[in-house]
Amino acid sequence: MDNRTAIAAKTAELLDAMRAARPLVHNISNYVSMDVAANALLAIGASPAMVHAREEVAEFIAIAGALVINIGTLSASWVESMILAAEAAGRNNKPWVLDPVGAGATRLRTDTVKTLLPRRPSIIRGNASEIMAVAGGAGAAPKGVDSANTTEEALAFAVSLAKHQRCTVIATGAVDIVTDGDRVVKLANGSPAMAKVTALGCALSAVTGAFAAVCPDPFEASVAAVAVYGLAGEMAADKTTRPGSYRVAFLDMLEVVRPQDITARLKIAD
Amino acid sequence: MDNRTAIAAKTAELLDAMRAARPLVHNISNYVSMDVAANALLAIGASPAMVHAREEVAEFIAIAGALVINIGTLSASWVESMILAAEAAGRNNKPWVLDPVGAGATRLRTDTVKTLLPRRPSIIRGNASEIMAVAGGAGAAPKGVDSANTTEEALAFAVSLAKHQRCTVIATGAVDIVTDGDRVVKLANGSPAMAKVTALGCALSAVTGAFAAVCPDPFEASVAAVAVYGLAGEMAADKTTRPGSYRVAFLDMLEVVRPQDITARLKIAD
Amino acid sequence: MDNRTAIAAKTAELLDAMRAARPLVHNISNYVSMDVAANALLAIGASPAMVHAREEVAEFIAIAGALVINIGTLSASWVESMILAAEAAGRNNKPWVLDPVGAGATRLRTDTVKTLLPRRPSIIRGNASEIMAVAGGAGAAPKGVDSANTTEEALAFAVSLAKHQRCTVIATGAVDIVTDGDRVVKLANGSPAMAKVTALGCALSAVTGAFAAVCPDPFEASVAAVAVYGLAGEMAADKTTRPGSYRVAFLDMLEVVRPQDITARLKIAD
Repeated sequence: MDNRTAIAAKTAELLDAMRAARPLVHNISNYVSMDVAANALLAIGASPAMVHAREEVAEFIAIAGALVINIGTLSASWVESMILAAEAAGRNNKPWVLDPVGAGATRLRTDTVKTLLPRRPSIIRGNASEIMAVAGGAGAAPKGVDSANTTEEALAFAVSLAKHQRCTVIATGAVDIVTDGDRVVKLANGSPAMAKVTALGCALSAVTGAFAAVCPDPFEASVAAVAVYGLAGEMAADKTTRPGSYRVAFLDMLEVVRPQDITARLKIAD
Repeated sequence: MDNRTAIAAKTAELLDAMRAARPLVHNISNYVSMDVAANALLAIGASPAMVHAREEVAEFIAIAGALVINIGTLSASWVESMILAAEAAGRNNKPWVLDPVGAGATRLRTDTVKTLLPRRPSIIRGNASEIMAVAGGAGAAPKGVDSANTTEEALAFAVSLAKHQRCTVIATGAVDIVTDGDRVVKLANGSPAMAKVTALGCALSAVTGAFAAVCPDPFEASVAAVAVYGLAGEMAADKTTRPGSYRVAFLDMLEVVRPQDITARLKIAD
Repeated sequence: MDNRTAIAAKTAELLDAMRAARPLVHNISNYVSMDVAANALLAIGASPAMVHAREEVAEFIAIAGALVINIGTLSASWVESMILAAEAAGRNNKPWVLDPVGAGATRLRTDTVKTLLPRRPSIIRGNASEIMAVAGGAGAAPKGVDSANTTEEALAFAVSLAKHQRCTVIATGAVDIVTDGDRVVKLANGSPAMAKVTALGCALSAVTGAFAAVCPDPFEASVAAVAVYGLAGEMAADKTTRPGSYRVAFLDMLEVVRPQDITARLKIAD
């Protein structure tokens, strides 16, 4: 059984398992992404909740299957909640995903990431520039919240970050890279149209939380999430690539995509 | 004239009256729901405003037709504004709707509801688990913000809560229950697809505010809002049930639904 | 070359220039509009960022092409950030757009606008009632965040405000007015369906920022933004006018609209 076949089989299995479990995913996310991330979670078969108050985040993660922290629209009070939630996730042995939106663009973002990293995220998901910035890459050149780098440029940084943090790192772009420092998988499904809709990267982080909730290996969960998400993006692009219509088609495809679609269409890059 | 005929006639009358008045609905809602709730209000024919600053909520409710308070994405400073707004609604004799999102899931949510109830909401709208939690039901089992109970299980709690609070209670689910403690109506329009789109329950609370703004009886306003909303959901499901497309179709149907559709298609359960 | 021809040519030129530059637009916007404004910026060809923390707004505007401040869902802490950002825009010679949502409806809104005006916005964009309220018009009658006035009623106020502030003023409605106090252009593209979708006015303010980022004359940038936006709205209405579908079609048309569509279809009113 070659690598692609094994990845497709595991991804198909996890997709079924996630839909059967319908995990509750606790998100502390940004204002822009809340709607599309919640809808993406519902569409793919999970149960979303957006909960950010410092008084309740620790209590809430205890009943959730995974936590997703996204620093897209930061403020000081939200950072406090993020820290509390990340620590509670640790105490409760719940996986958590960090989405370092705009890391490297401002000191507040870089500092917030530095504060969160010691709380040991299970998975870090960003675009190439963000992953390079989080890894301390001097060559990172974020353009606001969009990437100015390719994932190929980010590869060494992603591996180094994963090793150093002992976590899984996902760098998304034309080719998506998933690594836990030892293993590296490059996934090539998706569509350029995905970049036309705001917060689809954030929504992938949320969806990754859903897979992490049902899979003890964050690396396998990440590969599965990226594979399913990219394939849904590709299937949506078969329908339309106009930005308004594409968002609608993409959410539809998150529901439509089946294990056998993974088996048939998964693309692994070299 | 039987019960169904009377309800359909009243609902049709209120739908016309609401669209003619185009009431301004003041929402203090959660971040996830703001977009879809505002769009639902516009689509059905009302005028939405999202206003939460403590400095202005009391002033704003004075120019609005109704207030809707939704605790979906709580924080301490928003609770202060909710209290100020609810009290100002009382002083101005404006109806107000409470949506106790996630009540029972965390102490902050349960406590916030306890703080708001003495400010006398005209209408409380939640899913079955939320209504049971607000009513003090030990059997309530919310799964984050999704319900783990049926409205049939919530019925006795809804009636008891309505009596105790002297308000109208709406418990939504496969069958929607509306009660003021004396009267009980069970409405059976709608579609399972409504649960595929985030915050459609929140948006119903907003739409209920629009009907309450034009109808002195909160019970009749609630029945009309639930009936029209459920029917729009059913008409949308005639077009599509995919989650992205369904949201679009549902907003379209909120505009399309006419009084005569109510007369033709209203379903009252036993 | 008549006026219409000159405006169409300049607008077509700026649309190409904006898409080529793909400017980063820094938004401090309201919760309702963030999703649709970010998607509108992406669809038309710009790069959106929503950044509001007081710790980072000044740093962020330095890397952006323009700033857009929208007071839709105000709170005291956000006002602080707005002031810091507006001042930083001034220091960095970045154009900034003020969207005075609901000005005149509450004291907080009116006061916030008064605080921001001395920070010298390059462009002020509002509906007729808002522009009248900002200009100090006693006749302004906002209905929450919707306009109760026509832009014809707002014309003299808009010209006066532009002169006094030495900025460009955009008053949008059935006919859109753009003035810098000397020049006045009235644009008549668009569709009544645009009022069926929440926050499309806010999203126009964001799009105006994208044009201002690539054009040193705020008046020309404003005319171009309003012309392109209105034409996209008109082209979308050729497809559908139902509220859910219209939003989707409108975002599609922001991508589809070409310079030659401007040349062919631009409508200038007398």
